[in-house]
Amino acid sequence: MTAEIEGTPAGSRLQDLAELVADTPRIVIDRRILQANIVRMANRAASAGVALRPHTKTHKMPQVARMAAEAGAVGVQVAKLGEAEVMADAGFDGILVAYPIVGDAKLARLAALARRTRITVSLDSATAAEGISRAMVAHGTSCRLLVEVDTGLHRIGVQPSEALALARTIDRLPAVELAGVLTHEGHIYTAAGDVAEMERMTQDACRVVLEIAARMRADGLAAPVVSVGSSGTARFGMAVPGITEVRPGTYVFNDLTQVQLGAACESDIAACVVATVVSRPAADWAVIDAGTKTLSSDQRIVRTSERSFGRLAAWPDTWIVRASEEHGVLGLAPDSPLKIGDRVAILPNHICSAVNLHDEVLVAEDGRIVDRWPVAARGRLQ
Amino acid sequence: MTAEIEGTPAGSRLQDLAELVADTPRIVIDRRILQANIVRMANRAASAGVALRPHTKTHKMPQVARMAAEAGAVGVQVAKLGEAEVMADAGFDGILVAYPIVGDAKLARLAALARRTRITVSLDSATAAEGISRAMVAHGTSCRLLVEVDTGLHRIGVQPSEALALARTIDRLPAVELAGVLTHEGHIYTAAGDVAEMERMTQDACRVVLEIAARMRADGLAAPVVSVGSSGTARFGMAVPGITEVRPGTYVFNDLTQVQLGAACESDIAACVVATVVSRPAADWAVIDAGTKTLSSDQRIVRTSERSFGRLAAWPDTWIVRASEEHGVLGLAPDSPLKIGDRVAILPNHICSAVNLHDEVLVAEDGRIVDRWPVAARGRLQ
Repeated sequence: MTAEIEGTPAGSRLQDLAELVADTPRIVIDRRILQANIVRMANRAASAGVALRPHTKTHKMPQVARMAAEAGAVGVQVAKLGEAEVMADAGFDGILVAYPIVGDAKLARLAALARRTRITVSLDSATAAEGISRAMVAHGTSCRLLVEVDTGLHRIGVQPSEALALARTIDRLPAVELAGVLTHEGHIYTAAGDVAEMERMTQDACRVVLEIAARMRADGLAAPVVSVGSSGTARFGMAVPGITEVRPGTYVFNDLTQVQLGAACESDIAACVVATVVSRPAADWAVIDAGTKTLSSDQRIVRTSERSFGRLAAWPDTWIVRASEEHGVLGLAPDSPLKIGDRVAILPNHICSAVNLHDEVLVAEDGRIVDRWPVAARGRLQ
Repeated sequence: MTAEIEGTPAGSRLQDLAELVADTPRIVIDRRILQANIVRMANRAASAGVALRPHTKTHKMPQVARMAAEAGAVGVQVAKLGEAEVMADAGFDGILVAYPIVGDAKLARLAALARRTRITVSLDSATAAEGISRAMVAHGTSCRLLVEVDTGLHRIGVQPSEALALARTIDRLPAVELAGVLTHEGHIYTAAGDVAEMERMTQDACRVVLEIAARMRADGLAAPVVSVGSSGTARFGMAVPGITEVRPGTYVFNDLTQVQLGAACESDIAACVVATVVSRPAADWAVIDAGTKTLSSDQRIVRTSERSFGRLAAWPDTWIVRASEEHGVLGLAPDSPLKIGDRVAILPNHICSAVNLHDEVLVAEDGRIVDRWPVAARGRLQ
């Protein structure tokens, strides 16, 4: 079910939410669209015969993770141990910590987690693998490890030529089980707007990890998991034979970046920031009470000559053209009717960074606020 | 007292803090440098005969505001009501809410604040002034109002030609007292690197507000306060005869932006983000566990061809050249000795945005962690 099916354009649907909020700035979630996004991705993954492991970094809320699990997700992915701890506390079993865990303090926390839930960690070095193995032995527990491969993002990940050697190292370590190979093909975002190129790049990334998995298996190593990521590319990755798991995150809410990527329509945006016009000092701009401490400074991925920090939902030509910490400056046509006191719904560039700035979100359904969810895993230690 | 006086270069001083932290990423404050920054600005203001009203948005911590008050600050400035409430709870009297307060929910909170502490609000419209006046009458209290003037930033602020009319409107309203004129000359940051031009622009901004104050007084209106802002320009503004108040914020901690502005030396940086190297997958980059959810996405104000999200304190050539939410990518020379597990101290581009992402900071002195301060006003409603 999408907004189109209901016959409501996204702009006025989100703008309607703006009037429900007692004070601003606040993030409001349209629960119906959230549910539709979650079900659509789960159905796609099920049709493709691929496991869906959503990334919780977007929302950091057990409520959203639970909705995804009820729709068929196999487990959760987290970006940091603090998020894993919150999800484990909320009863989630089968957590992928997609981050190399390094250092004694974190290793002790990881081992404590592994004693109470099934943990998998992705990493790209023997150093990290050996540290985890030692911690698991010391605490009498175990976990699974995935070899993270750099397929072009040049962030975390061994180069493909070194993946087999790391897999062999992991296979020899005690208290850890080699589970396969993982990549995050985030470099595909550089091709935003060119769907064919994005698909080709995703297929290339999939081919790299599939070849590594094949070499691992030929070498007698276990590689049940071949996992690729990102909301922008999940639709391409799940169509590649041999891929066993996709890990999108942003798809639950969507944002202007996902729209730019062609991974969502504006009608699929489930979260907006509601703000109030606090100043209209000149004909061609107004100021709202949402700046970079509310929206983040994240820019649009396809850069234009103008910077922008988000767009009004109901006024497609009205952008936040400048922002400081608590001020967003709307570029306006001189005849814009916006005036002091008006409420506006903003489509954020990057909802993951925006949610991380808020301690709770409001949840709307059927024209009223029905719940408030704490952003439980916000502000947790890495 | 500055780091130079102690004979300790900033880089190794902050890098030494990195080893004191049990886990990363964390913000660590060097209390000695914080105290030196606070005392230096207070002494400058006292010498100039100008009131110092530091902006709490940088730190959001009553502990830091109290240090500034003990050094001679006349009160605090806040960017939002939630910060004012935290500072009032901590016992601060004389709070400048430098934001037009609009909407019933906020007006009720403002009136409640005005009943327990002396409140001044700066604003740029009759609409906002009338709303505040009505709320003060309804709650049987009062506050002071400042006319905010746009001296070039083009954010909040009436145009200079309209300032006198707004002052007259305020003067006629019940339960509010006209207190003068205010500007935030943040547009001066565009001249970063050209100290003479920054000084000239600051003097121009001061001239505009001084002329308005003179016209107000000639018209029989009260204008005891002529207030200008910003850490980058405080040293210029306080030297202009007739300016009664300066409102710097970032100077307590400083950051790479303040260094670029020439308002601080690196040895004056009192806050760093401590991170751990978690991956060294190639010769020319490493990954640390501090990304945009730890440092913010705020860029350097003087843009280079390369983006950057901060710099290592002890390695002046090593920048965070890319960042995603939980990853910072360090551009390295191939012979860099940095390896997995190493701790690094990062100089942030913009400390105000970084602090806002953390629930608490660690405080170091004499080679050990001596305190932890909650970022008490973080996450509060506007």
